[in-house]
Amino acid sequence: MEEVDRESGDNTPVILGKYRKEIEHSLSDALSLHNSGLQTMLRYHLGLSDEHGNPMISNQGKGLRSSLCMFACEAVGGAPEHALFAAAAIDLTHNFTLIHDDIQDGDRERRHRPTLWAIWGTPKALQAGNVMRTLADQGIQQLHHYQLTPEVVVMCSMLLTSAYLETVEGQYLDLNFEGRTDITTSNYLEMIARKTGALIRCSMQMGALTGNGDARTVQALTQCGTFLGALFQIRDDYLGIWGYEEETGKATGSDLRRKKNSLPMVYALEHASATGKEQLQAIYAKEQVEDKDVASTLALLTELGTPEYVQGLAETHADHALKALDGIDLVPGTKEEFYALVQFLLTRQQ
Amino acid sequence: MEEVDRESGDNTPVILGKYRKEIEHSLSDALSLHNSGLQTMLRYHLGLSDEHGNPMISNQGKGLRSSLCMFACEAVGGAPEHALFAAAAIDLTHNFTLIHDDIQDGDRERRHRPTLWAIWGTPKALQAGNVMRTLADQGIQQLHHYQLTPEVVVMCSMLLTSAYLETVEGQYLDLNFEGRTDITTSNYLEMIARKTGALIRCSMQMGALTGNGDARTVQALTQCGTFLGALFQIRDDYLGIWGYEEETGKATGSDLRRKKNSLPMVYALEHASATGKEQLQAIYAKEQVEDKDVASTLALLTELGTPEYVQGLAETHADHALKALDGIDLVPGTKEEFYALVQFLLTRQQ
Repeated sequence: MEEVDRESGDNTPVILGKYRKEIEHSLSDALSLHNSGLQTMLRYHLGLSDEHGNPMISNQGKGLRSSLCMFACEAVGGAPEHALFAAAAIDLTHNFTLIHDDIQDGDRERRHRPTLWAIWGTPKALQAGNVMRTLADQGIQQLHHYQLTPEVVVMCSMLLTSAYLETVEGQYLDLNFEGRTDITTSNYLEMIARKTGALIRCSMQMGALTGNGDARTVQALTQCGTFLGALFQIRDDYLGIWGYEEETGKATGSDLRRKKNSLPMVYALEHASATGKEQLQAIYAKEQVEDKDVASTLALLTELGTPEYVQGLAETHADHALKALDGIDLVPGTKEEFYALVQFLLTRQQ
Repeated sequence: MEEVDRESGDNTPVILGKYRKEIEHSLSDALSLHNSGLQTMLRYHLGLSDEHGNPMISNQGKGLRSSLCMFACEAVGGAPEHALFAAAAIDLTHNFTLIHDDIQDGDRERRHRPTLWAIWGTPKALQAGNVMRTLADQGIQQLHHYQLTPEVVVMCSMLLTSAYLETVEGQYLDLNFEGRTDITTSNYLEMIARKTGALIRCSMQMGALTGNGDARTVQALTQCGTFLGALFQIRDDYLGIWGYEEETGKATGSDLRRKKNSLPMVYALEHASATGKEQLQAIYAKEQVEDKDVASTLALLTELGTPEYVQGLAETHADHALKALDGIDLVPGTKEEFYALVQFLLTRQQ
């Protein structure tokens, strides 16, 4: 059971477990820098060491993106290790965005540990993030070691670059949405398709490419990744409000306390009566959202059928993701593994 | 005289003028983004528009890096436009570092205009910087339009990535040097070779590669770029203290006021008597460096022969840069152009 995801208990689907060790080694190798100060910061952020550089029992995230990349390579008939550099590159890119996000949002904690800037200050954290991204670029450039053609290497470079550009455009849209009450669910879905979806889509696309999938198969896995990215973020938004606190067993409403304009709130503002809308706006206009505000907002969201809408939308995207693979030949057994992953993403509790 | 550098008067060397229009167009094209908010920020930073997006008379820097890239391509016998994407990429990379530097250093002004973060806030400026870098990566990936082999495209990608990594390692070293008084001139030169030198070296290297120079010529131009990068920064450090204010005609001492640990100060701390060293340390320990402190520090630096040492070191690097090209066949006339550039960099006043 050593490959079990530490965050999610033992119902972790095979895809998130089977490539974990290889990916962890590859990430650790990628972080071999001359500069030991920078190296410590990066290893710390990835949960490979404590802030003094001492190795620690891994405290990483789910590794969804890198696992999907390895999986897509294997599913089209490639050797998953051919996707290893691309997989590590996508995880490094994702983690680079997290380092900069924490600076932007002023978040002092991530995965129950202080963030990079909270320990080392903004200037060093900013640069550490930039270095993390550079190591991702170098990872992609290493792909040529695997007898992949230079064309595939250049293609992967281009895909990762443009997926990242979409991510930033999504983040930028998100910043522009802040404080606005006229955002539609369709605006919102477009934003998350970029902010979260682009890198997840790119994971599957690069995996299929490095596995030498034919054009139609690569296309199908890419489309599948697009829906999976949306599903992932929609469930995330669900958990941000109706995720359960371990101690109390009650909905946390944590995104409401943080006045986040996530999907449930966007939906509620779009569908509430004039009075309901005023009530929601008044609460988000407050300096501090109190317990009673959270309770009354949760009640209003329930009344509007928001949890059912949000979870229903996640399920629709899950269906589309699976349908994208219809009629596509994948290595036997891999579709079942993917199905289990989709079920996990739909029902995960954190 | 329309190609004259606006900052430097009309003694601008040919190399900094002849490619300027093409580079400006290429940069402007590179900034065509879907997101008009981001586009305005990037155009503003490059001096192509005001903060509302209205085009303005160009207020760019010298464009040293992009010009060197075009020049190296032409000097080895290539068509300079084959280096255009690489040239734009290196300018975009350099400008990305400036956007993040301004955030890190809290600088509110650059080239007599408010910096990006000062106008749009840190979160958006941080992302705008990241996008600028992404556009650089995309520029390199565009190189394949010019019948360059995928191998050369991948090679340029790798060179730009690792030059950037060196830049950040240099910046990180620089941050670690802050406030320390035990830095030797040799530590310092190693730091600037990375922080400033790597991208300048990479400019010439990519130019020579895209011009299809043979291995020995590419190597010679690369080495030449290494010395040129050091020369550029050393003269910059000189001007930071002995540059003249337009109004008063007196040395500004501006790096002293900002308590910067640049080459003159590193040299002085290394060579001053115990008393002199204490005096310098006491001044840099003050909250605010006053006019009389600047005057006494300038006197001490002069006494130690610091200006002569610094300018002499710049000249040594100029000699090495020129010597690197000995015995190398370049297109007739280009060595003379390069010689004029070196003279300009040695004597420039700003």
